[in-house]
Amino acid sequence: MKTQPYSSTLLKYIPFLYVIWADDLISPSEIQVFKSAIEKDDLNSEEKKQLLSLANPDNPPTLETRKNWKELIDASGVTLTENISYPLSAFSEKVANYYNSTEKNQLNQSLKAIELNLGIQPNHYRHLFKGTLKVQENIIPYQSEVIDQIMKGDNTEYIDEFRSLLKDAIFDWKLFRDKDAHRAHVLNQVKFLAEKGYGALGYQKAYGGIGKMTPYGSIFEHLMYIDASLTVKFGVQFGLFGGSIQNLGTKKHHDKWLNSTGKAQTLGCFAMTETRHGSNVKGIKTTATYIHETKSIIINTPGPNDNKEYIGNALHSSMATVFAQLIVNGENKGVHAILCEIRNKEGNLNEGITVEDNGYKLGLNGVDNGKIWFNNVAVPKENLLNRFGDIDDQGNYTSPIENSNKRFFTMLGTLVGGRICVAKGALSGAKYALHIATKYALNRRQFNSVSNIQEDLIMDYPSHQMRLMIPIASSYVYQATLDKIIRDYDTVINQDTRKIETQVAALKATITWFANNTIQECREACGGKGYLLENRIGDLKNDVDIFTTFEGDNTVLLQLAAKGVLTDFQSDFNSDSFVDILKYVGKNISDKLTTINPIFTNKTDKEHLYSSEFHLEALRYRTRRLTFSAASRMRKYIKSGMPSYQAFLKVQTHLIVLGEAYAHQMSYKIFTDFLQTIGDKEHQQLFEKLGTLYALQTIKTNADWYLEHGYLSTNKSKAIKRRLERLCSELRPYASTLVDGYGIPKKCITAPIAK
Amino acid sequence: MKTQPYSSTLLKYIPFLYVIWADDLISPSEIQVFKSAIEKDDLNSEEKKQLLSLANPDNPPTLETRKNWKELIDASGVTLTENISYPLSAFSEKVANYYNSTEKNQLNQSLKAIELNLGIQPNHYRHLFKGTLKVQENIIPYQSEVIDQIMKGDNTEYIDEFRSLLKDAIFDWKLFRDKDAHRAHVLNQVKFLAEKGYGALGYQKAYGGIGKMTPYGSIFEHLMYIDASLTVKFGVQFGLFGGSIQNLGTKKHHDKWLNSTGKAQTLGCFAMTETRHGSNVKGIKTTATYIHETKSIIINTPGPNDNKEYIGNALHSSMATVFAQLIVNGENKGVHAILCEIRNKEGNLNEGITVEDNGYKLGLNGVDNGKIWFNNVAVPKENLLNRFGDIDDQGNYTSPIENSNKRFFTMLGTLVGGRICVAKGALSGAKYALHIATKYALNRRQFNSVSNIQEDLIMDYPSHQMRLMIPIASSYVYQATLDKIIRDYDTVINQDTRKIETQVAALKATITWFANNTIQECREACGGKGYLLENRIGDLKNDVDIFTTFEGDNTVLLQLAAKGVLTDFQSDFNSDSFVDILKYVGKNISDKLTTINPIFTNKTDKEHLYSSEFHLEALRYRTRRLTFSAASRMRKYIKSGMPSYQAFLKVQTHLIVLGEAYAHQMSYKIFTDFLQTIGDKEHQQLFEKLGTLYALQTIKTNADWYLEHGYLSTNKSKAIKRRLERLCSELRPYASTLVDGYGIPKKCITAPIAK
Repeated sequence: MKTQPYSSTLLKYIPFLYVIWADDLISPSEIQVFKSAIEKDDLNSEEKKQLLSLANPDNPPTLETRKNWKELIDASGVTLTENISYPLSAFSEKVANYYNSTEKNQLNQSLKAIELNLGIQPNHYRHLFKGTLKVQENIIPYQSEVIDQIMKGDNTEYIDEFRSLLKDAIFDWKLFRDKDAHRAHVLNQVKFLAEKGYGALGYQKAYGGIGKMTPYGSIFEHLMYIDASLTVKFGVQFGLFGGSIQNLGTKKHHDKWLNSTGKAQTLGCFAMTETRHGSNVKGIKTTATYIHETKSIIINTPGPNDNKEYIGNALHSSMATVFAQLIVNGENKGVHAILCEIRNKEGNLNEGITVEDNGYKLGLNGVDNGKIWFNNVAVPKENLLNRFGDIDDQGNYTSPIENSNKRFFTMLGTLVGGRICVAKGALSGAKYALHIATKYALNRRQFNSVSNIQEDLIMDYPSHQMRLMIPIASSYVYQATLDKIIRDYDTVINQDTRKIETQVAALKATITWFANNTIQECREACGGKGYLLENRIGDLKNDVDIFTTFEGDNTVLLQLAAKGVLTDFQSDFNSDSFVDILKYVGKNISDKLTTINPIFTNKTDKEHLYSSEFHLEALRYRTRRLTFSAASRMRKYIKSGMPSYQAFLKVQTHLIVLGEAYAHQMSYKIFTDFLQTIGDKEHQQLFEKLGTLYALQTIKTNADWYLEHGYLSTNKSKAIKRRLERLCSELRPYASTLVDGYGIPKKCITAPIAK
Repeated sequence: MKTQPYSSTLLKYIPFLYVIWADDLISPSEIQVFKSAIEKDDLNSEEKKQLLSLANPDNPPTLETRKNWKELIDASGVTLTENISYPLSAFSEKVANYYNSTEKNQLNQSLKAIELNLGIQPNHYRHLFKGTLKVQENIIPYQSEVIDQIMKGDNTEYIDEFRSLLKDAIFDWKLFRDKDAHRAHVLNQVKFLAEKGYGALGYQKAYGGIGKMTPYGSIFEHLMYIDASLTVKFGVQFGLFGGSIQNLGTKKHHDKWLNSTGKAQTLGCFAMTETRHGSNVKGIKTTATYIHETKSIIINTPGPNDNKEYIGNALHSSMATVFAQLIVNGENKGVHAILCEIRNKEGNLNEGITVEDNGYKLGLNGVDNGKIWFNNVAVPKENLLNRFGDIDDQGNYTSPIENSNKRFFTMLGTLVGGRICVAKGALSGAKYALHIATKYALNRRQFNSVSNIQEDLIMDYPSHQMRLMIPIASSYVYQATLDKIIRDYDTVINQDTRKIETQVAALKATITWFANNTIQECREACGGKGYLLENRIGDLKNDVDIFTTFEGDNTVLLQLAAKGVLTDFQSDFNSDSFVDILKYVGKNISDKLTTINPIFTNKTDKEHLYSSEFHLEALRYRTRRLTFSAASRMRKYIKSGMPSYQAFLKVQTHLIVLGEAYAHQMSYKIFTDFLQTIGDKEHQQLFEKLGTLYALQTIKTNADWYLEHGYLSTNKSKAIKRRLERLCSELRPYASTLVDGYGIPKKCITAPIAK
């Protein structure tokens, strides 16, 4: 009975060989993993030779041989137990012990190495053997707490404290259908946060804050787990309204307004967008005319469609920061911001002010958006937020920035912090949805093979793994990226922000789109259950949707980012020297565009495909090449007499592609730098895999472009696709740990399907 | 002053040449258009030679020459007028007349031919000349009424009558936030439609219908313009509930129930899905046990999560078609449908029935979805819908279909009509959103070049054209496809429906995803305005979302479609002969997979890229190749001992891709056949362009695959991308006419931004 043709040392490799061949798990490049593992085992040279020949992808064992292996394994009667570490190694040892019971029972290191390094997972072999089918949460080598800690970094203290605060009953989830009730509740939550000191967090110390955006950004993110309406209302009150006073005003404004704003005793709104002017802020029509006799500024809405539109907090505010064309001595000095009281102490609208509710929206109905008209409303000259433009005692306009175009962009530039927060909020929404969908996928069963009584977890379907693992990986890459960018912002604030504006424009667009796509995937991945509002994904979907539009329309932002890249962050895009810059950039890049290495183009082994060197190079190449070709095309058009505005239109779709490529390259680069800072080597490996998945997915999405430019061979392109699917299955056992690693407070996970 | 170097006949070509070179409008392949046009003009051979040399893409005129042209044009002082036919031809004639006033003023046919055939549009040259900027709706050669008529086809009578009916005040748009009020309103609308005879439309004549699905499908589509909740409630009552009686029952059921169902006097629901079993209908747990003593069937919900879930009409119905495992003489005969009264005449729940409201959903809150539990509820044996399985007087089970698996799929197959309607409804939602977004894009202005006072229409941005024109083109392709399929369904009903089931599975998935992506694009294309519920896109987005899940989860359906393709619609997929079939299909296709023609691979001229021969061949190649490789892979796995269920999992993502490829190929093929039926040659040309845009977009989306398989050269792939952008700009002047061509009743367009 207990006879078989292999030596006892070799025998324990047989189940591995069987699995490897049955599930196609070894490629020529991976033979090395196998080789170095057996090298370290206690085998004689004959055994090693035999093993290698049985694992040779160029000469696979015959069907007959494999059938014999299966019989040998089945005859042992050993059953598979998944809820232990290294289940395949353990299984192999047991099979070997059956045939040679004198063997010691400790797990062989070489088997473990193969199991780990080839990324063999139970879903690769579960169907091949008899055994129990348990979710393996408790056996994996990673801990969600460690992951969470790595991500929290030096924000830990703020984050932990805030997570505790969220336990308060005021943050319990409630379903609202009526906007007025919803708005009232959100207003109470905002006031509660202000009382606890979170409203002022981003302001200078003198006004109750810490003078940094970074912790504020983390708070903002966490509010998404409560209600995105709260996130936005909080952002409008403290970030946009308060931020406009902080960034566009001077000490007199800070002293007068920041304390009460941070405490939500003064509620304010940010009145920039107009019905006819959303993306084109420079073209807004509201006027602010200075009258020297009365030392006052008259704010006026000229036409019926020049009203302020979609202004958050419009129905609750007493104050507004109004953006308007400032006219001094009959001359238009461009867009400036002016504080204007719109409601009196009793909460009634001031004379000359009309406010209209925007009504029901697709989402964010807890935010009171409204339209505002100004009918010649006078405010004192002191209300001009005068950091970048002032009116002196003689009634003349003065500004530290001569060029009005530059002044305008400098003013807008101070608001870039809000844009980072929007991206963070959207990402947070995506993480929340991924958490719910992943937990559901680890619970929900549907269909089975004839032989199994229990149906399969939907997480064990390859398509479902792709659907969830890829965005999970991306979410970590983007989180690390935004955390880095917001820290950078804290250090460059009040300095030249042109580069960071470009970065943020590209990231805001890319990440808010990523978030929307991800939430949609999660909704569908949860089937009909995902459609019930109690499961939270529905509202997330509706709320995050508008993140692609507000704080800069994504399509417009990507063009802005591309223009930044094209001018190397050096110059104003509308300057006369623009053509020279294009020439310089084009030449500079063309010199750097290395000839594509043909060996690189064809390399398809795992080590290469998993190497960050390859990823970085591929992503960098794409951005550079797109920059070069955009610059060349535009120069050609402009040289042949086309006005530069038209030349832009001609390359518009090209610029949008460039903007996204830039965001991908930047994100992956930041993530690889971040990897170096992870002390825990085991978890560092996990994060490396997440980065690889992100990079390969990005390259795959643009495979047509890489193929067209000869950067990838057709074989390499196919190899990348296969790798992606394989990598998703390798990461699948860690799905639960990874979404727990987001650290979303338990009380916020109200979705019944995620429990 | 009036001197210039060209002959008067040649002169009128100068503005054309200027535009062509300034905007890069001629490729080597298009020189033929130019050539044949001047061939027909009254030019001497010297002039012809000179003209050809000035239009030679291999040797473009110098910058100096082009500068001179511009001066010559500017000096004429002629301004551009857009609101006339052939504006560039007219402009050219005027410029020529300025220099030679004796010329007659009739438009030259050759110029018109060039303007038309090169697809030169005002947005290609508007910036080059002085002139007025008017939307050119009234000058285009196409009429929305003609387009509408072409699409209505032989359904015209039904559609026109129904559009009139929609004028009734009961269909006025109302915003609901409260589900109970919404549901009550929708129920009234359903009853109104039933009274007018539309409920019974799809039934046999004896029961008030016309025995065809086709007009019913058109009605269904139009309801999407009122409220998707109405569409779905209507579909549940008359299509699912009534349809189950019609298709699964026999004459006794028809006689007893169909009249009152069609009149909505009997309200019913379709109780198939269970909490734990959505996609896997075969695995449902509800039992229906036959008790011969009492001649009754006992319906029972065994476990707490085996309840019927998400059942539409559950809160209003008196009847339910319950799907359950039929147990006769202690033997499970598989899933059958049984009619069960759930509420008595007073509207109270019968004993043993528990119904729970599913609560608020992301959308469709006008539909009353609920959960239903059955606690040993007895119904008479006659209530078994016994077309495919019956219990005889002796208490024995009988069925015309021996094989229980086949019986199950035959029963489900009769319900495929509903799936067609779901695809039609989703498409209708996409069309509605496209109508709104297109009208907005033709009104909304944002940004401008320094020289223009008026800002540009957002429709004139290339990215916006791509965003809207591509889905507009696809909407026509899919409309023609679904209209063909539903007519086919009417002819094959009660026959072998396996092929049409495969087609519908692929189309339902592909078109509902298309619809969701399109509605999302439209939301973003309308910016913040698209986010307001008054503009209707928001609710469309929420309502259509679930169309990807209900009536078959899209991911599951694509696999189903792929399995159909793999078995050549010939055999049950789970049969023993499956491996033989794979072998047959693989061999059969491999014989047909023609070697790729290298000239074809490299051809990039316009004529080729626009030819349906190329498109058909490319789309067919992809489906065949994917079928062949899927079959080969599976055979390999199965041969090496892998169970077929696991082999499917290994190729799951491959099958999903195949399912979509099949839908694309089928749709384009049906559309090209449809083109042949269009009598009006001018409009036929327009439809041809829509088809070309659809095909090129499909090929472009899969360009990586075509490149990997050597089907496209890198140059051809790039050429297709350029063509796509160009084709969108060529179609841009017809955007408004095309969305008017949907024939959406004016009263349904309530969105303020679309007025």
